[in-house]
Amino acid sequence: MSVIVAGIGETLMGKYPDRSIYEMIREAGHAALDEAGIDSSLITAAYIGNFNGQQLLGQGHFGPLVMETLGMSHVPAMRVEGACVSGGLALLQGVEAIRSGRHQAVLVGGVEKMTHQTTAAVTSALTSAMDIEFEAHSGLSFPGSFALVAHRYFHEFRNVQREMAQVAVNAHDNALLNPTAQMHKKIDIDKVLNAPRIADPLGLYDCSLVTDGAAFIVLVSEELAQQLDDGAERHRQVRIIGSGHGGDALTLHGKASMTTFGATIRAAKQAYAQAGVEASDIDLAEVHDCFTITQIINTEDLGFFEKGHGGDAVAEGRTARDGDMPINVSGGLKAKGHPIGATGISQAIEVITQIRGGAGERQSNKVDTGLTHNLGGTAGTCVINIFQGA
Amino acid sequence: MSVIVAGIGETLMGKYPDRSIYEMIREAGHAALDEAGIDSSLITAAYIGNFNGQQLLGQGHFGPLVMETLGMSHVPAMRVEGACVSGGLALLQGVEAIRSGRHQAVLVGGVEKMTHQTTAAVTSALTSAMDIEFEAHSGLSFPGSFALVAHRYFHEFRNVQREMAQVAVNAHDNALLNPTAQMHKKIDIDKVLNAPRIADPLGLYDCSLVTDGAAFIVLVSEELAQQLDDGAERHRQVRIIGSGHGGDALTLHGKASMTTFGATIRAAKQAYAQAGVEASDIDLAEVHDCFTITQIINTEDLGFFEKGHGGDAVAEGRTARDGDMPINVSGGLKAKGHPIGATGISQAIEVITQIRGGAGERQSNKVDTGLTHNLGGTAGTCVINIFQGA
Repeated sequence: MSVIVAGIGETLMGKYPDRSIYEMIREAGHAALDEAGIDSSLITAAYIGNFNGQQLLGQGHFGPLVMETLGMSHVPAMRVEGACVSGGLALLQGVEAIRSGRHQAVLVGGVEKMTHQTTAAVTSALTSAMDIEFEAHSGLSFPGSFALVAHRYFHEFRNVQREMAQVAVNAHDNALLNPTAQMHKKIDIDKVLNAPRIADPLGLYDCSLVTDGAAFIVLVSEELAQQLDDGAERHRQVRIIGSGHGGDALTLHGKASMTTFGATIRAAKQAYAQAGVEASDIDLAEVHDCFTITQIINTEDLGFFEKGHGGDAVAEGRTARDGDMPINVSGGLKAKGHPIGATGISQAIEVITQIRGGAGERQSNKVDTGLTHNLGGTAGTCVINIFQGA
Repeated sequence: MSVIVAGIGETLMGKYPDRSIYEMIREAGHAALDEAGIDSSLITAAYIGNFNGQQLLGQGHFGPLVMETLGMSHVPAMRVEGACVSGGLALLQGVEAIRSGRHQAVLVGGVEKMTHQTTAAVTSALTSAMDIEFEAHSGLSFPGSFALVAHRYFHEFRNVQREMAQVAVNAHDNALLNPTAQMHKKIDIDKVLNAPRIADPLGLYDCSLVTDGAAFIVLVSEELAQQLDDGAERHRQVRIIGSGHGGDALTLHGKASMTTFGATIRAAKQAYAQAGVEASDIDLAEVHDCFTITQIINTEDLGFFEKGHGGDAVAEGRTARDGDMPINVSGGLKAKGHPIGATGISQAIEVITQIRGGAGERQSNKVDTGLTHNLGGTAGTCVINIFQGA
């Protein structure tokens, strides 16, 4: 059963400590529903990504909260959580609900509100994505985890500190052309290399952002899409042609490798097989750049570049907006922002917008097939979706 | 596609502040996997219920945590959360994964660790199941919410304080015969009626328990069940023949009624239709008795008794273990325990055990078809599953 994108909507990403979750849900949710032009009574399930609501707001049970806020309390909904891949999991659940024929129309979305809390509170809450007993209680944080990953990568392959800095520069350049992005600030390689260290070799600009935001997508079956079609020309139709969900150990020490993420490898294998495409068929991708080193590893694990050569591709400009394999044209988690439970949905919205040709100044040349790659924790969970224009 | 129960496992329910989540997951998870006798490489997805890990342990991302703990890190897993229906949602996701043909074998489970925290911390964490802005910040707690429900029920129908006390007495009587149960203490109606008030009209014995525990189930397709069958006689085969997922407003004020739970009505309609059975075909049920009034309302909403007459059925002994519609023979949330993320799975294990005829001293006479009813928050979400013996 084909899965069709009927509508998308997201808030501006950024520091909005005074915005309520209700306000963000309403803005992004109604935008997606309005674009879909669907009677909300046709929507029979909803999947909501949220990671830190319980810790930062004291709020869980986001399924009925979101549906009540959107005036659709009758729709059965659930929160799915996989740390930073919560939004990706919500999207995946929606895709599978349509693909299996169980539902004809579903709403998927994510919301996160973080910046009203102190950095210390946010950092502490984020560690709930790693193993508490074996990792967090030993003093490990996420910058610390990925700093270990980076050092190991330098050891196994070569030092890519400069290429990591270029990843950050590209992200900021792209976000300058994205009105939705949190970060609108031009930087250069020296600024990244000379920035305060967070956890060596990761400096301030090697780390993604703390972001408030929400993002929603309405998915429908091909059959329903045909019924809803009134013949008016709106957007190029986008469908989700392949999906993958990969698991790995939660802990860093439990993984077979620190520089090849098993969760990505397994999710990519499923997604490419289901879509019937190969890495070389992907025109553009949004990949999970929680840290600059992560983006480089991901682009290797996804098969875009050979293992150990992701940094070369960055240095050669291949991942830039006008390169042959544009990565994170939105600005990515690094500069568009990382509203955790909404991130996976927000990545999808960028790829859908690029395929539709509606990305304005940051539009890539030719995007028929795009991919989103969303990672949870220290690569304990990965969700990949492949999108194609009709 | 038929959904077959291949294996079940759960820990003792109770106050085990010194048990780690890893220990509980291993005990219950391996019990289910061992009973299924399945090579774990055949399991291709897992769905994990947990509610309060982030607030009470600082631990989220339970998908890969559980799989790593069970030595199955390669299996893609996700946490699903819907407050007290988190376990029910995990079960539902597993059922749908098999029923849709996407997976041949899945692991569903839940785990919760609560009693290491103070009652104040637990009560505060539990309010994340209700709307924070409109309810919790106004001072409403869950006993307070369901006390309002009880008062409204008394107003619309009649005072069932004595019947509520009988619900508690039945639960304690049943739990006395359940070695897995947390509460092993005989009580009588006077003790319930004279107990300290928590939120009038709810006294101490009208409230369910705070519980540590884990519960897991292996589900397989009919096709795989036939392949695994080695001809040895073990248990009567149990299949899940119908499921339902109902939504409603998160808030109490957002609901159409406080005494008929729309989430239950909608989930029951789906589950009965899918199973092709009616309420009168159900031989036994585990229903969500977070408070004694809730059990009475649920048995009406499920169609076992007429609206306003659930209390009569209790008074007449119809819901007792030897009645014509035995309810919560396990002891229920009231006396077996309420390990939140595991509760929905634990309810299913009781019904499966009863259908197999393996419930020992608390075995009901004839159980061919049983039902589980799991509720989240103030009835914002409901999951129902219907089980049948081969």
